[in-house]
Amino acid sequence: MTMSAGTDVRWVYSFGGGSSDGDASMRNLLGGKGANLAEMATLGLPVPPGFTITTEVCTAYYELGEKYPDTLSGQVEAALTALEEKTDKKFGDASNPLLVSVRSGARASMPGMMDTVLNLGLNDTTTEGLAKLSGDRRFAFDSYRRFIQMYSNVVLGLPHHEFEHILDQYKEVNDFHEDTELSAENWMDVIEKYKAAVKKLSSNPFPEDPKEQLWGAITAVFGSWMNDRAILYRKLNDIPQAWGTAVNVQSMVFGNMGDSSATGVAFTRDPSTGENQFYGEFLVNAQGEDVVAGIRTPAPISKARAERINSDLTPLEVEMPAVYEQLVDVAQTLEKHYRDMQDIEFTVENNKLYMLQTRNGKRTAAAALKIAVDMCHDGLISEEEAVLRLEPGQLDQLLHPTIKPEAERDLLVQGLPASPGAAVGKVVFSSDEAAEMAAAGEKVILVRLETSPEDIHGMHAAQAIVTARGGMTSHAAVVARGMGRPCVCGAGSMQIDEAGGIFRVGGREVKKGEIITVDGAEGQVLFGEVEMSQPDLSGDFGELMVWADRARKLKVRTNAETPADVETAKSFGAEGIGLCRTEHMFFDAERIPVVRAMILASDTAGRKAALGKLLPFQRDDFAEIFRIMEDRPCTIRLLDPPLHEFLPHTDADIEEVAKGTGLDVKALKARADELQESNPMLGHRGCRLGITYPEIYEMQAQAIFEAAIRVAEETGHKPIPEIMIPLVGTKKELEILKGKIEGVAKSVFAAASTELEYLIGTMIELPRAALRAGDIAEEAEFFSFGTNDLTQTALGISRDDAGRFLKAYEEAGIYEKDPFVTIDQDGVGELVKIGVERGRQTRPGIKLGICGEHGGDPASIYFCHNTGLDYVSCSPFRVPIARLAAAHAALRKAD
Amino acid sequence: MTMSAGTDVRWVYSFGGGSSDGDASMRNLLGGKGANLAEMATLGLPVPPGFTITTEVCTAYYELGEKYPDTLSGQVEAALTALEEKTDKKFGDASNPLLVSVRSGARASMPGMMDTVLNLGLNDTTTEGLAKLSGDRRFAFDSYRRFIQMYSNVVLGLPHHEFEHILDQYKEVNDFHEDTELSAENWMDVIEKYKAAVKKLSSNPFPEDPKEQLWGAITAVFGSWMNDRAILYRKLNDIPQAWGTAVNVQSMVFGNMGDSSATGVAFTRDPSTGENQFYGEFLVNAQGEDVVAGIRTPAPISKARAERINSDLTPLEVEMPAVYEQLVDVAQTLEKHYRDMQDIEFTVENNKLYMLQTRNGKRTAAAALKIAVDMCHDGLISEEEAVLRLEPGQLDQLLHPTIKPEAERDLLVQGLPASPGAAVGKVVFSSDEAAEMAAAGEKVILVRLETSPEDIHGMHAAQAIVTARGGMTSHAAVVARGMGRPCVCGAGSMQIDEAGGIFRVGGREVKKGEIITVDGAEGQVLFGEVEMSQPDLSGDFGELMVWADRARKLKVRTNAETPADVETAKSFGAEGIGLCRTEHMFFDAERIPVVRAMILASDTAGRKAALGKLLPFQRDDFAEIFRIMEDRPCTIRLLDPPLHEFLPHTDADIEEVAKGTGLDVKALKARADELQESNPMLGHRGCRLGITYPEIYEMQAQAIFEAAIRVAEETGHKPIPEIMIPLVGTKKELEILKGKIEGVAKSVFAAASTELEYLIGTMIELPRAALRAGDIAEEAEFFSFGTNDLTQTALGISRDDAGRFLKAYEEAGIYEKDPFVTIDQDGVGELVKIGVERGRQTRPGIKLGICGEHGGDPASIYFCHNTGLDYVSCSPFRVPIARLAAAHAALRKAD
Repeated sequence: MTMSAGTDVRWVYSFGGGSSDGDASMRNLLGGKGANLAEMATLGLPVPPGFTITTEVCTAYYELGEKYPDTLSGQVEAALTALEEKTDKKFGDASNPLLVSVRSGARASMPGMMDTVLNLGLNDTTTEGLAKLSGDRRFAFDSYRRFIQMYSNVVLGLPHHEFEHILDQYKEVNDFHEDTELSAENWMDVIEKYKAAVKKLSSNPFPEDPKEQLWGAITAVFGSWMNDRAILYRKLNDIPQAWGTAVNVQSMVFGNMGDSSATGVAFTRDPSTGENQFYGEFLVNAQGEDVVAGIRTPAPISKARAERINSDLTPLEVEMPAVYEQLVDVAQTLEKHYRDMQDIEFTVENNKLYMLQTRNGKRTAAAALKIAVDMCHDGLISEEEAVLRLEPGQLDQLLHPTIKPEAERDLLVQGLPASPGAAVGKVVFSSDEAAEMAAAGEKVILVRLETSPEDIHGMHAAQAIVTARGGMTSHAAVVARGMGRPCVCGAGSMQIDEAGGIFRVGGREVKKGEIITVDGAEGQVLFGEVEMSQPDLSGDFGELMVWADRARKLKVRTNAETPADVETAKSFGAEGIGLCRTEHMFFDAERIPVVRAMILASDTAGRKAALGKLLPFQRDDFAEIFRIMEDRPCTIRLLDPPLHEFLPHTDADIEEVAKGTGLDVKALKARADELQESNPMLGHRGCRLGITYPEIYEMQAQAIFEAAIRVAEETGHKPIPEIMIPLVGTKKELEILKGKIEGVAKSVFAAASTELEYLIGTMIELPRAALRAGDIAEEAEFFSFGTNDLTQTALGISRDDAGRFLKAYEEAGIYEKDPFVTIDQDGVGELVKIGVERGRQTRPGIKLGICGEHGGDPASIYFCHNTGLDYVSCSPFRVPIARLAAAHAALRKAD
Repeated sequence: MTMSAGTDVRWVYSFGGGSSDGDASMRNLLGGKGANLAEMATLGLPVPPGFTITTEVCTAYYELGEKYPDTLSGQVEAALTALEEKTDKKFGDASNPLLVSVRSGARASMPGMMDTVLNLGLNDTTTEGLAKLSGDRRFAFDSYRRFIQMYSNVVLGLPHHEFEHILDQYKEVNDFHEDTELSAENWMDVIEKYKAAVKKLSSNPFPEDPKEQLWGAITAVFGSWMNDRAILYRKLNDIPQAWGTAVNVQSMVFGNMGDSSATGVAFTRDPSTGENQFYGEFLVNAQGEDVVAGIRTPAPISKARAERINSDLTPLEVEMPAVYEQLVDVAQTLEKHYRDMQDIEFTVENNKLYMLQTRNGKRTAAAALKIAVDMCHDGLISEEEAVLRLEPGQLDQLLHPTIKPEAERDLLVQGLPASPGAAVGKVVFSSDEAAEMAAAGEKVILVRLETSPEDIHGMHAAQAIVTARGGMTSHAAVVARGMGRPCVCGAGSMQIDEAGGIFRVGGREVKKGEIITVDGAEGQVLFGEVEMSQPDLSGDFGELMVWADRARKLKVRTNAETPADVETAKSFGAEGIGLCRTEHMFFDAERIPVVRAMILASDTAGRKAALGKLLPFQRDDFAEIFRIMEDRPCTIRLLDPPLHEFLPHTDADIEEVAKGTGLDVKALKARADELQESNPMLGHRGCRLGITYPEIYEMQAQAIFEAAIRVAEETGHKPIPEIMIPLVGTKKELEILKGKIEGVAKSVFAAASTELEYLIGTMIELPRAALRAGDIAEEAEFFSFGTNDLTQTALGISRDDAGRFLKAYEEAGIYEKDPFVTIDQDGVGELVKIGVERGRQTRPGIKLGICGEHGGDPASIYFCHNTGLDYVSCSPFRVPIARLAAAHAALRKAD
């Protein structure tokens, strides 16, 4: 859009007095505030009349090099004249002056922009007029001095403290203690001093001309669009500069004109519980900013609320019953009209109610849930709308214990909010200790520099996990989220002295056995025991999830391998297992020696002997999973991590393991050295193990088939194993390994004289695999996009090491979001799309899913829906989030 | 192609007797041997007549379930009848029998298939006829017993040793010592025993019917197409099964019919030097296989050759002067006709010359060069053809010293041929020692478990490098190739005891200071000093390279940073620097303490102070490079490796460094720990350093601009710095860093009151960068595809760790070639193509090159040409190879 002088663009929209030029749908042009003021006026609600200068003026202003379009001033003049007519007042008039407020109002709510200027239009003359009109000379001059102070600061950019200082000095000299002690005459003295200060600081006298005042304020609003705070806020919130801000000029009403005046804010329902109870606060004889400033304690609006919170203050319902009735009416009208809970601002001037703002109210997750379900029951919104009212990300709050909002927090250290929920327990520094103490009935918090697969049992035993290193997708974070354990990661300022049984942070020390509280949602570690609320998954939750399930197209599976996790996921509605990581089963105390013997074996025969001992364990593992999941599909990934992950690394560990297992220290050490890798993530792992040691995969396949047959016979259910080969980069790898697995299937089926359905597929987790998906699909019956590794390889970022620079990257705006949390749609996303397209071209019915951490992230789930995947898979505690996000994706796309 | 009975497909092509149905162009249908026999016959050369059964029969045979097409037998009968007419003999005739050989002949030469069957058509009756015809009864029955033996083994599949055993027993019983002692009657006895054995072993009598013999042999040839050896060979050499083999049935001629008969092989030029001297060997009274078998020593063909090699044997030129004349004539005809050096087989029967085979002869690189240049000078081939006659990969042999072919090799260990050339020197185990001894004038070989950037000075000082670990693209291999040092990597069976100053291998010990020889081309480490030949870059080399340069489209640059390497590359024809790795300059003894101080600095100010000390070094480095390269473009990559690479790692090293530099041990250790990474390849490196520590890149940019200005002023040349930002994954990274570098440029230019041209670009070495090349090109003025890292990330393979499975992968046919040596066109190649396409779409004139190791690999260079890159960049010693490969690419594409 290019602005040229002389076009007949409409720059100004009037509202109030029973009608408006605009309405709520014109948010982009009029900003949120302006659009809602226009809408309320049209609804016949008591809105002080005014006009909105559009966001397009803002854009034009900057395009023209900070000049206004030629036709603007005429349109503002006309709107001002119309406003004078509506209010029956005149701008700058000595006896009946029109006073206005000037406010910014962008399309999206934007803190960081210009503050409000109130009482604009006051000068030496009009203040006398106001004094007469209001019959309150002190009120008039107080208003005038407030205006000078506000205008000088906000519009002229003079420092606030200069004016504070003048007032303080005046009070000191005259021995006043409170502002209320100053008379009209005192205020007139102060005003003189203020004006002198303005003249001195800005080299210009304070503008007496109301028109000059008005244009000054308008320009200040548009100027504030490009101040540093606003620019930063837009950057952080991805708001385009081109959106611009509108300016709202509105006739003043006064809540501070004596005891028949008041001002307040209200929510149409309780924003913290969602209860359908009118909720709000007000102050008699006050202006809006006084409610916010918190010098006086506002009173509750309704009697019911006052009783609920045991307030001694007189509610509005009692103080001004008629106004209260009208306000309740307005609130109901607005809620019905907007079909959502409203956050409103109002002023009462001489017992007359005025509405200054309405908008959809912010609310807690619990409130969002209750409001959505209630409104749907009341027929105000549809099931689909109800589903869309609850942000999937908010659900986390409902699924875990949380720290009570009012609880005192003694913060030890701030880390990353790696896994939500809160927990209390005694500090322990080793996983073995955690397991022992937990077995003895103690609640413990595991504190580690970082965790590794050897810590799984300790993490399971702990109430929560804290690490000094690692990011949102470090081992600790991923495993903790999987287990539903609260976790704080990357608390880098913590110094852990494991041997000494102590950690130090910010000059404080916490010893083993001392109690701490972990707030995983906030990333905080707190000293001592902090009070908590337990999650209450009421009927509303279940009902909304049913509606969500009706709407969604994506299936939701879970990433789980322990029976406990599989049970949890099933109870949360998982429709199958998308990723069962078999290696997690190798770390069990009974098994790890056998795994190590397998790794140390010098030949295939030795490996096979050890694998033979693992077989019954694996078979039982799978049987247990099949039993729980019944007829649901279970994707089981064959061994993925490099073998050195199963060996001890430090000399001490090696010796301990050798002692414990009877294995040779030297051999252990030599093999560990031999297996060491420069970049294990890109090393000898995944199907590369299957190619070089086929006996491992063959044992696993045998365990899977035998378990499935056993469970089918025992239960009558039909388990559907989906055997997944990891880290495939070429069709050939899959072809070779598929052949071996089919061979195993044949012989197991022959031995059992039965057969069962199974699928063989692969992870797509390497860029090459995505590009060659067409070939690979010739062999693969399903793809599961492993977007963790795909992100690591496509972006060339090791998630274990990313912490060193990812924060700087997010701050510099290089990655808007941690790409391990929300899928990088432009890069990794294109690879997924390519994989989907080419895979389907070869095998139209191929089953497509995702099993990276992204499977539980709402933004990523929208992407999965839009890309046409069949399912997402996520950790058990994120299953409900995924179900809801999948519903959002389907409903939004349907829009 | 589907075969159905009754089609009039032509299955059989006759040749000989002055004309042929086929010719040399029909190689795909007739196989190499058949096509050339047809061609020779058409040329009027003396070819024993015969016929070829086409490769299509082979395909049809397998498509029909091992049955022949209906019309085949009729066509064979007809060809046989025609052959009888041409030879004036009859198949199976008692008095004048036609005898034939049956040979396989595929499109590509294929060992692993059926051996030849000679003398087919002999039986009890026809042998009598042959006896009469030849006047040599012993010869006839000897031929018959040879035929039975050969046929029984090759066609009937009976074990060779059964027949050997019968003959040995017969000789023992009759007290014969040599075969020559057996008379015709003795052979008849043996034949009876042979026949009895056939009957016993195969349950069938030996076939007396010549037609049955013929079909048996034909079927054996087609059957051998699918034997295990042939299948394996095809797999390894990427020959499609569908090509099939042809069968050649040719009338027999006998080189063993007495002293007027002979057989031999010859090359039209010397295949080892390329000299235009007729070259070959022959045996009187022998069949072809006797020359190969090596029981009798063959004589040279020409007098000149006999003199040259001081042979006592009588050359053919003396033995049979007329035949010799005719053979020289035929050879010249063939060479002129085929326009290439020929490898021919001939037989003389009763003083009459017969040609049995001709094909382009294999030759050494030196011979290939000389023959190509000579033939072009003689007008036989064009410049372009001459260029195509030399395989780029062969050039390596011409550029390095090599071990004399006849030298004795005392092999210590076989490793990977990591960098070509050979060298002799004393064993040393540390880089410091290597540098000291080299400074004292000693020639040393550096033997290490593996090398790291800290070994650069030792590698430079050494004649060659040997490592126990690492693959073809390990640090040692890459750096050694870059420096032109011979290198053997991954000699895994070597146990190195650095402290003890000894290495052990295969039960032997080699001490520090003992002399070994390294053969980098063969991957061998040899004990003692072995004799070598120095490279002789004669005028032919220079001339051919001029022709190559005329043909090629791709520019060739070099990856180099030391003045010595830059000089070498320039002398080899490098047209610029494609990759100057600035980090290599950080390891110098004077600088590394400053680099470490920079890394240890706790704040920006500290880093800047250390960088200030590095600046003059870097400026001198760049000035030196600009001076050598004059007006050629120089791409300089800013710091790429993670900082921990510059710190010592073991406790001992840390203490040593601390002592040497005065840095604090604890601080060093703490910082080294802090910087340690799980996957450094995907870690805090490349432009991520530039984003987090911009002062490093700013110092480097300053050094580059100041050096360029200095050299421009000193020399009048115009250096063109191309500043390259590594590891970019997003446009934003480049945007931020480009801004900083432009800022530096501005202030350097202002200070110097001058300006100069420069470019800022990026490496495309991450899959995301290739996909987002469209955005990135908005900022980048050039792309250099870093295909080393692109291969690591696209395939998810760390090249440092790949050795553990890459061999198994190549053997399993998963990767046909090491993807770090030859670009993986299907995967990495698609990313390069995407990058090229999207980059050019945004910025049509963008400069595109490649600087990975692939830049020096011929197959990868063809890909670069076809993908439309502007240049390739490779290590100095590969520059000529790249020039030639680029020419091949252009000429082949022009085809």
